[in-house]
Amino acid sequence: MELHHCRVETSMKVINVGVIGAGRIGIVHLEALASCADAKPIIISNPTVSKAQAAAEKYNVPEWTANADDVINHPDVDAVWICSPSSFHADQIKACAKAGKHVFCEKPIATDMAETIEAINACAAANVKLMTALQRRFDPNFARVRQAIEAGEVGELVQVKLCSRDPSPPPFQYVKGGGGIFCDMAVHDLDMSRFLMGSEPKKILAVGSCHIDKSIKTLPGPEAYDTATIIVEYEGGRTATIDVCRQAPYGYDQRAEALGTKGMILTDNMYPNTARLYLKDFTGNADMPFDFFMSRYKEAYIQETLAFCKALVEDLPSPCSGEDGLMALIMSVAAGMSAEQNRWVEFSEIPEVRACTDPAHCKIIDPIEFALEATHNL
Amino acid sequence: MELHHCRVETSMKVINVGVIGAGRIGIVHLEALASCADAKPIIISNPTVSKAQAAAEKYNVPEWTANADDVINHPDVDAVWICSPSSFHADQIKACAKAGKHVFCEKPIATDMAETIEAINACAAANVKLMTALQRRFDPNFARVRQAIEAGEVGELVQVKLCSRDPSPPPFQYVKGGGGIFCDMAVHDLDMSRFLMGSEPKKILAVGSCHIDKSIKTLPGPEAYDTATIIVEYEGGRTATIDVCRQAPYGYDQRAEALGTKGMILTDNMYPNTARLYLKDFTGNADMPFDFFMSRYKEAYIQETLAFCKALVEDLPSPCSGEDGLMALIMSVAAGMSAEQNRWVEFSEIPEVRACTDPAHCKIIDPIEFALEATHNL
Amino acid sequence: MELHHCRVETSMKVINVGVIGAGRIGIVHLEALASCADAKPIIISNPTVSKAQAAAEKYNVPEWTANADDVINHPDVDAVWICSPSSFHADQIKACAKAGKHVFCEKPIATDMAETIEAINACAAANVKLMTALQRRFDPNFARVRQAIEAGEVGELVQVKLCSRDPSPPPFQYVKGGGGIFCDMAVHDLDMSRFLMGSEPKKILAVGSCHIDKSIKTLPGPEAYDTATIIVEYEGGRTATIDVCRQAPYGYDQRAEALGTKGMILTDNMYPNTARLYLKDFTGNADMPFDFFMSRYKEAYIQETLAFCKALVEDLPSPCSGEDGLMALIMSVAAGMSAEQNRWVEFSEIPEVRACTDPAHCKIIDPIEFALEATHNL
Amino acid sequence: MELHHCRVETSMKVINVGVIGAGRIGIVHLEALASCADAKPIIISNPTVSKAQAAAEKYNVPEWTANADDVINHPDVDAVWICSPSSFHADQIKACAKAGKHVFCEKPIATDMAETIEAINACAAANVKLMTALQRRFDPNFARVRQAIEAGEVGELVQVKLCSRDPSPPPFQYVKGGGGIFCDMAVHDLDMSRFLMGSEPKKILAVGSCHIDKSIKTLPGPEAYDTATIIVEYEGGRTATIDVCRQAPYGYDQRAEALGTKGMILTDNMYPNTARLYLKDFTGNADMPFDFFMSRYKEAYIQETLAFCKALVEDLPSPCSGEDGLMALIMSVAAGMSAEQNRWVEFSEIPEVRACTDPAHCKIIDPIEFALEATHNL
Repeated sequence: MELHHCRVETSMKVINVGVIGAGRIGIVHLEALASCADAKPIIISNPTVSKAQAAAEKYNVPEWTANADDVINHPDVDAVWICSPSSFHADQIKACAKAGKHVFCEKPIATDMAETIEAINACAAANVKLMTALQRRFDPNFARVRQAIEAGEVGELVQVKLCSRDPSPPPFQYVKGGGGIFCDMAVHDLDMSRFLMGSEPKKILAVGSCHIDKSIKTLPGPEAYDTATIIVEYEGGRTATIDVCRQAPYGYDQRAEALGTKGMILTDNMYPNTARLYLKDFTGNADMPFDFFMSRYKEAYIQETLAFCKALVEDLPSPCSGEDGLMALIMSVAAGMSAEQNRWVEFSEIPEVRACTDPAHCKIIDPIEFALEATHNL
Repeated sequence: MELHHCRVETSMKVINVGVIGAGRIGIVHLEALASCADAKPIIISNPTVSKAQAAAEKYNVPEWTANADDVINHPDVDAVWICSPSSFHADQIKACAKAGKHVFCEKPIATDMAETIEAINACAAANVKLMTALQRRFDPNFARVRQAIEAGEVGELVQVKLCSRDPSPPPFQYVKGGGGIFCDMAVHDLDMSRFLMGSEPKKILAVGSCHIDKSIKTLPGPEAYDTATIIVEYEGGRTATIDVCRQAPYGYDQRAEALGTKGMILTDNMYPNTARLYLKDFTGNADMPFDFFMSRYKEAYIQETLAFCKALVEDLPSPCSGEDGLMALIMSVAAGMSAEQNRWVEFSEIPEVRACTDPAHCKIIDPIEFALEATHNL
Repeated sequence: MELHHCRVETSMKVINVGVIGAGRIGIVHLEALASCADAKPIIISNPTVSKAQAAAEKYNVPEWTANADDVINHPDVDAVWICSPSSFHADQIKACAKAGKHVFCEKPIATDMAETIEAINACAAANVKLMTALQRRFDPNFARVRQAIEAGEVGELVQVKLCSRDPSPPPFQYVKGGGGIFCDMAVHDLDMSRFLMGSEPKKILAVGSCHIDKSIKTLPGPEAYDTATIIVEYEGGRTATIDVCRQAPYGYDQRAEALGTKGMILTDNMYPNTARLYLKDFTGNADMPFDFFMSRYKEAYIQETLAFCKALVEDLPSPCSGEDGLMALIMSVAAGMSAEQNRWVEFSEIPEVRACTDPAHCKIIDPIEFALEATHNL
Repeated sequence: MELHHCRVETSMKVINVGVIGAGRIGIVHLEALASCADAKPIIISNPTVSKAQAAAEKYNVPEWTANADDVINHPDVDAVWICSPSSFHADQIKACAKAGKHVFCEKPIATDMAETIEAINACAAANVKLMTALQRRFDPNFARVRQAIEAGEVGELVQVKLCSRDPSPPPFQYVKGGGGIFCDMAVHDLDMSRFLMGSEPKKILAVGSCHIDKSIKTLPGPEAYDTATIIVEYEGGRTATIDVCRQAPYGYDQRAEALGTKGMILTDNMYPNTARLYLKDFTGNADMPFDFFMSRYKEAYIQETLAFCKALVEDLPSPCSGEDGLMALIMSVAAGMSAEQNRWVEFSEIPEVRACTDPAHCKIIDPIEFALEATHNL
């Protein structure tokens, strides 16, 4: 009997991955990495180290630690998956850039626009790839709409419509200080409109109101809205219309529709199975649609990790760049301004963009130029 | 910096698994095992050993070999996943039983009924668990139908209907000598009818014909059919009606419907996404349904492995026993006899069942008694 | 001001129609006739003459009467719509034939097979057209399936499946003496299978059981069944499978499915609108499917009347002949025999058919020859 | 034999109807009137009198004429159905008012706002009922949405969304001088938003663009658009979002969606049957959706006539008043202004409304007051 023992061979193409965070989303990416022949997680960190250890044992990760720096600075790590709380993202990205490690970062890149630009610039300066994990782009449904548009299946694109509703409103404390419905919720849909349009937005109009949780009505600006409608104008006068609501009692509502000169494509919500029940007072789905992002976007979370692995192995551009994340943020801020001022807003008006002129922060991306480009040059 | 290195701790609850076969289906189960905290694959075999090695490296399996016996007799292996070609199944099951190893066996248990019974008896005598991997029982759609029936959601069960169509007919050489449409295709649906009914069948009526590949018309008995309809009578006169066809140009058609006194539940085929296209001459799904069992039953393959792991860890009965596999085979043979003789057939009439009376082969299961019980006592 | 007063001009192409019966179904046909430029109802009868008068006034019918003979023998009437109770049909058909009037007759032609044959023969002898109003053939859904089959949209036909369930079981008194589920319910589906197949059936297998209203279990023969499954074998071994049940708590369930070598076509139930509701515990149709034949087949009732008018005006064969009605009856009787005897039945075995040899009754149709032809010559 | 001859009894409740116009839409209403026991068409006019005669003969209308005045002034006529070209509407309404006849008028009431107001005032002054035939309100699908909202099935209303797309763009000559997409197309959807909301709109934002027929790009104002998106703000900040396009290659697209605090209701397009085809490269509806308003809104055209008959017989308010038609027109004009000026528009800004201050024209409705009320008082 001859048995072969496993030698870990680091071929040119196998990416050694370090994972920061062993929470729910960290585990999702660990599972995705397990099915990826080209990537191998070699270390995982978590402040509560027992969670890191449990994950390491389950997914055969040889090392674990309490300290994210151990992951970032591990000599064998090629790329870091940042799955920590949002407030740590910017510093960890910059540390990765400094250590020459590619970065997969759960959204958002940072909690404010200046730090977002700083982190993007740090990666660009260090020539490491940065992936903003806007996972909806990798959802089989939205990706299919994009594919139909790109392939001309619906002809020349005329219009995009997106509907996005959370199952239930977040607690008051989450909304307060969170930046409002455009930044904490519609940001995904604004990015999706740009992804589907395949071009840069020109101006934005938003309107918000409060119907679900009246307690937030006293909060300032867009934090007072739980319902909003947005029109984004793109090249050639084409529009994307987005409606968002913090409550859909029937589940997590995520739909897209694109009209072209040859036809339309649309997507529906996802259900755990195809079963339909026909009873005395009911004919419909046997079960409710997926009601949370972890189940609804399960496949998207896997696909985004596989896509970034592929980009690393084949040295392709990041499939969802830091600039994509930044642009989504700029659009959210502009939407908030529009809703407050009841008028169309151009992206060059965003004050945070104008303020960010310190060359120390913006070596590579000049945000004004970036925003102007987005607004006028497309 | 303190790093913890992975120690393989064989807790009471972690099952050490050996896998025989690194082909497509072996890989599917390796992936499922990877997401199961309670099981750890420790060795994999494949005659072409490089395939075993590749799988071992990808899924962190520490040992690999060309020889299935190395797996079965490995001292640390608790349970064996048999993913080899069907002709090896019976011998490997018996070897596992002899070695005291639990067995997860891809269907069928054996290629004839006597060997099937022998293999089941061997496991029973050795007191090891045997799982027949009838994966459809673990598909979220069929499982939901079963759940509705068990929970009384549709009231008292009145009738079951199953439709099963392969995307395209197999080659002539596969059909010839394969035992015919009831044994190589409808066997899954016959099992499903029994699973949904939750009781034992009493008699069977089948009719077959040939419409797709006329070359098979010259083959003997049920091998000449590519289309068939079956009625199985269960307790209380309730019937399950099954229609099968070797060709569905639109994909892999797998549907179930159950009528009860309070309503109906039915399932539809599965599509890769929810996108629908609306064009000049077309309004419908943007993509075709899954057209092969590996994509259609992807989740079922995972769930069946998780279910057997759970049975091992918690010492529960096998979630799909050897007797379930045997009963499906008996039903298939009886269906063939019915179609040939144009009449209702009772299960006690099956000659292979009657012939199998050598006590050396049937220590634990007495097939006549088993079949009679199925036919008369329910 | 010059006004033109209406002159009733009996052009060559306008059919003067007499209607027997001002009940629900009579009114349906009156409405259909109102939208038919080629036909003009000129008299209507009803035993309760006030109902005839009310209908006449509403639909501008110039004459009304209590007596069906006034309709049949009215000198201007070209064709009679028989919408009276079933027990009057045969005599009224024969009276029409004697008077040389074409006949549109609500199903059934008669309440037994001998009278059915007699009525058909009377019309044939008198050279008047006889329409059996098997309305489902004119339903836009079933008609679309037939059209797809005829046009080869699904390739060569392989198989037909029909599902037919009444919303709720009829009272015991209706079932008792009614001839059982094959004659009073499945007769429509047996006809539909023949309509869709476009050829004559060869043999039949049926099985029945009782699950809904246990009180009928004591009734003789097929009257004891409220649930049944039927396989009808057609030319080339093709089968039609029919399942019927006297109760579907979710409405009137009427579905068809046809598989061909190139694909499948299927139809679903009809709803009063397309609205879908999405609530906390429910996602599905806002309203239940049509739950009764008058709403479900509203369009079919109109279309069958228009189709017969067209046949009269253009001198085409009856779009659904007396022989079609007879064959449906023969199939129902054979299904009952099969279910009772647990075996396949050939149509030549039907005793009523054999008994009907008196040349006085069967001048034109020789039922034995007819049945043999159906059974053997196709 | 005793025959009763039809006496035309004008009971208190039977409405004698005159119809102006024997074109396509006139015939639709004649058919609807034929099934209405409470109304009796007694005269029909058409400039080409042979069309009036043909319709009269088919639908048993005793008199016909070339002259609309004969209808309006016929002494027995109680109500007039105006189905003439739009340019005649206002004068015919005023003539009806003068003659004391109730008016059912195909939309629009008039081709400009001043005449619309004049016609409404004339009816009000003469105390005759005026029905603006906005037929979509009577469509079973949209009516079901309204019913759900009114009954609280979706809780408190949060948002309405409407999608309206014509099958193909009209000819250049139709668009030129037609007032643009808001007046000739979106007017129906603007009315529908108000119908579903059940309250008055406060302000409006619209954006238009041209993607289908580039030849119209040179036309002035909203005539240059073939695609538009509109947000209408209602009471409490609730919004209705409307998107319209002059081309949907897949048919006539007419959908509604309403979100409330308890759930959502939405409607889909209508198909001629429920058949679905499953072929090698296609799984979807066997036929395309209804592609024209006459088939799509067939039932709506019938229901609106029946609704007005009921209002006449029971002396109820008009189910869709002249003011409803006026408000839809005001909304269309405001939408055009918004799209031209890229800003929110309040309804009191509409110059045509302000200009219409001549008391000779606006005795009863004071349009400024009306518009202000719509804008500020709700």
